[in-house]
Amino acid sequence: MTVAHIQDISQYEGQNVTIRGWLHNRRSSGKIHFLMLRDGSGFMQAVMSKAAVGDEIFTRADHLGQETAVSVEGTVRADTRAPGGYELDVSGLEVVGPSADYPITPKEHGVDFLLDRRHLWIRAERQQAILRVRHEIIRGVRDYFDSRDFVLADTPIFTPSACEGTTTLFPVQYFEDTTAYLTQSGQLYNEANAMALGRVYSFGPTFRAEKSKTRRHLTEFWMVEPEVAYATLDDAIDLAEGLVVSVVERVLDRRARELKTLERDTSKLEKVKAPFPRISYDDAVKILHDKGMPFEWGGDFGGPDETAISDHFDRPVAVHRYPSAVKAFYMKPDPNRPEVALGVDVLAPEGYGEIIGGGQRLDDYDLLLQRIREHKLPQEAFEWYLDLRRFGSVPHSGFGMGIERVVSWVCGLEHVRETIPYPRMLYRLYP
Amino acid sequence: MTVAHIQDISQYEGQNVTIRGWLHNRRSSGKIHFLMLRDGSGFMQAVMSKAAVGDEIFTRADHLGQETAVSVEGTVRADTRAPGGYELDVSGLEVVGPSADYPITPKEHGVDFLLDRRHLWIRAERQQAILRVRHEIIRGVRDYFDSRDFVLADTPIFTPSACEGTTTLFPVQYFEDTTAYLTQSGQLYNEANAMALGRVYSFGPTFRAEKSKTRRHLTEFWMVEPEVAYATLDDAIDLAEGLVVSVVERVLDRRARELKTLERDTSKLEKVKAPFPRISYDDAVKILHDKGMPFEWGGDFGGPDETAISDHFDRPVAVHRYPSAVKAFYMKPDPNRPEVALGVDVLAPEGYGEIIGGGQRLDDYDLLLQRIREHKLPQEAFEWYLDLRRFGSVPHSGFGMGIERVVSWVCGLEHVRETIPYPRMLYRLYP
Repeated sequence: MTVAHIQDISQYEGQNVTIRGWLHNRRSSGKIHFLMLRDGSGFMQAVMSKAAVGDEIFTRADHLGQETAVSVEGTVRADTRAPGGYELDVSGLEVVGPSADYPITPKEHGVDFLLDRRHLWIRAERQQAILRVRHEIIRGVRDYFDSRDFVLADTPIFTPSACEGTTTLFPVQYFEDTTAYLTQSGQLYNEANAMALGRVYSFGPTFRAEKSKTRRHLTEFWMVEPEVAYATLDDAIDLAEGLVVSVVERVLDRRARELKTLERDTSKLEKVKAPFPRISYDDAVKILHDKGMPFEWGGDFGGPDETAISDHFDRPVAVHRYPSAVKAFYMKPDPNRPEVALGVDVLAPEGYGEIIGGGQRLDDYDLLLQRIREHKLPQEAFEWYLDLRRFGSVPHSGFGMGIERVVSWVCGLEHVRETIPYPRMLYRLYP
Repeated sequence: MTVAHIQDISQYEGQNVTIRGWLHNRRSSGKIHFLMLRDGSGFMQAVMSKAAVGDEIFTRADHLGQETAVSVEGTVRADTRAPGGYELDVSGLEVVGPSADYPITPKEHGVDFLLDRRHLWIRAERQQAILRVRHEIIRGVRDYFDSRDFVLADTPIFTPSACEGTTTLFPVQYFEDTTAYLTQSGQLYNEANAMALGRVYSFGPTFRAEKSKTRRHLTEFWMVEPEVAYATLDDAIDLAEGLVVSVVERVLDRRARELKTLERDTSKLEKVKAPFPRISYDDAVKILHDKGMPFEWGGDFGGPDETAISDHFDRPVAVHRYPSAVKAFYMKPDPNRPEVALGVDVLAPEGYGEIIGGGQRLDDYDLLLQRIREHKLPQEAFEWYLDLRRFGSVPHSGFGMGIERVVSWVCGLEHVRETIPYPRMLYRLYP
């Protein structure tokens, strides 16, 4: 018995194989059952005729519920009308695990109903396509950095102090008498790692106790954060641009079938080529004013502002040199104009907003200490971070890219909740 | 000005280049300074003669502290006596960032002293070698699964309930009135993902609030966990064996220099070839008895037991069919002998103990429900997990491999605390 995976089915044309999977759906027309099978690697139609399998098996197939686990034997036949180009002419069927009253039927369901059944919802063709694109994006990100000799250096999830204030931190009871906080970013540690290993990146989950219920926020999300010793703001923008182009090209190249399942307009993604427009915060404010939007110089952009700015371009746009006052304490001020910081955000097109944030870090000991005090941060917790400026400080830059936002954009989704197998949100901790 | 990375230095023989890095150490002999440079990609000796650079630069170099950030210009010269095969004849030196009284000197330091300065300790050659081997192992693991068409499906860090009891769980205050727990394993979710995508793996941090202070435990550690629909216990052992062989071969092949830095006896690693011995729990107990060790059938192996069993073999050993009573509720009993479970542990040689644990999962609804009740687990929290047996249950198997334990074994370390950039332990949350 040859067990074939549906994704490899073209290798078995004319052969007798067994598909082990599940009955995705079924329709019947007189003496033929059309069984849509799925085995995790793909979807494929199996054609069962009463003449080929006999009365008993044929009648049994009449009553198979959606998601019944089945082992189906048959001959692979090329058929240009079939979605994958092949069908299976069934000669035998065995029920491995029954299924009755599967809750997710082909009819429409509300999103809360589906999220409560996320462990089953991921069996749907569309959800599988999203998760495969997610995997491809993650592989693309890792290959991009690995092929450039970056060292993956994991940063801790348990941190003793806050990177940017404590209101959005999740506290953890760390044994009897200590409180740890879940990381919001590996950046500070990446800076230490870059001083050791030169070019590094972290890739892991990060956490934000944000009470907002927007389509862009999860409480638990994955971030990749590269950091490079001796790199400037422009180097960081080059690196970010190369990363985004490389990842989008890879998904277009390797996940065309999934993008088709998602009905993604790929012509929009094909425009994602270097060079990206690079505009200053001042330029971005001017775009808003030209569109008649009220915005005062000095503030941070909100979602609608980001959408308006990115709508101005057909590819991602890098917006740099934000007012220092709205950016984190560790950002290096522009030496030519200290009221702005050498930071950058990359905004995705089609209204998807910020996918990358980063810039050049403050490498001067005295100024960093001053900033820590101005921000009323506990200096003691940052002594190790100050050490990086005490012992051989160098210019360095990096950024963070949120995986779920990139998946959401590349797949063309309405909401980030479908970009991860088990989304965690304000009111969502199950399953 | 050509900026060269030390790891690529052989490409620049005879050329004038700039190395941007740090002064690792320095010794002087009359009119020559020997400067050991590091730039994150490697270590390289730079030779500065007074004749070549003049009095002023030469004298300045007299006072450079360890870890001073320097940009050094010079000509690359082949020298068979040099560790990397090349030296730099210095023509110029610029101090980028000063460093005085660097705390980690070439003398011996206590491990607590070093762990308090972990952000600096990782600059040491030995620590860099470990972190590069870690990266190579992680790449090897991912490539192994990706090349076999597994889908990476991330499992949640925030979980609503405990997989195996609550005493070793870290509680998180999840907004006002909810408690979440940090994941100890993605397995239950992987099972749901395997029912959707066939062959899946998760790769992420896991957490265990273990109060023990052993050389094998961290509170925060990384695990890879594959899960395969329609796979049996033997399939899982095959997969685990292939993974371990592939990862060890890759490190031997690509990280020979790092293993040399670590003074690892690579002849031990070269013996890690398939097939691994596969013995039953009963056989393992017999080994202990033959060695005169007291051990009663029915218990779980402790560290010394694992060491005694694995010392019996020159390569990893798979121990299968443990007593059901000591294993998790979701393990499938052996149909031929229900008092043992279809579980497997893989023990590394040289006393490193368990690196992999897994097996075949219980796929029968009634028996799973009975086990949940026997273990007094809250059934409501496991309804989604029971759904996997309600709707098309199939045989399935998988395992988890702890990354830090593998790094510790491959590098030949005494303690897992050096296997991760920022180890978290009972009394260790800083830096």
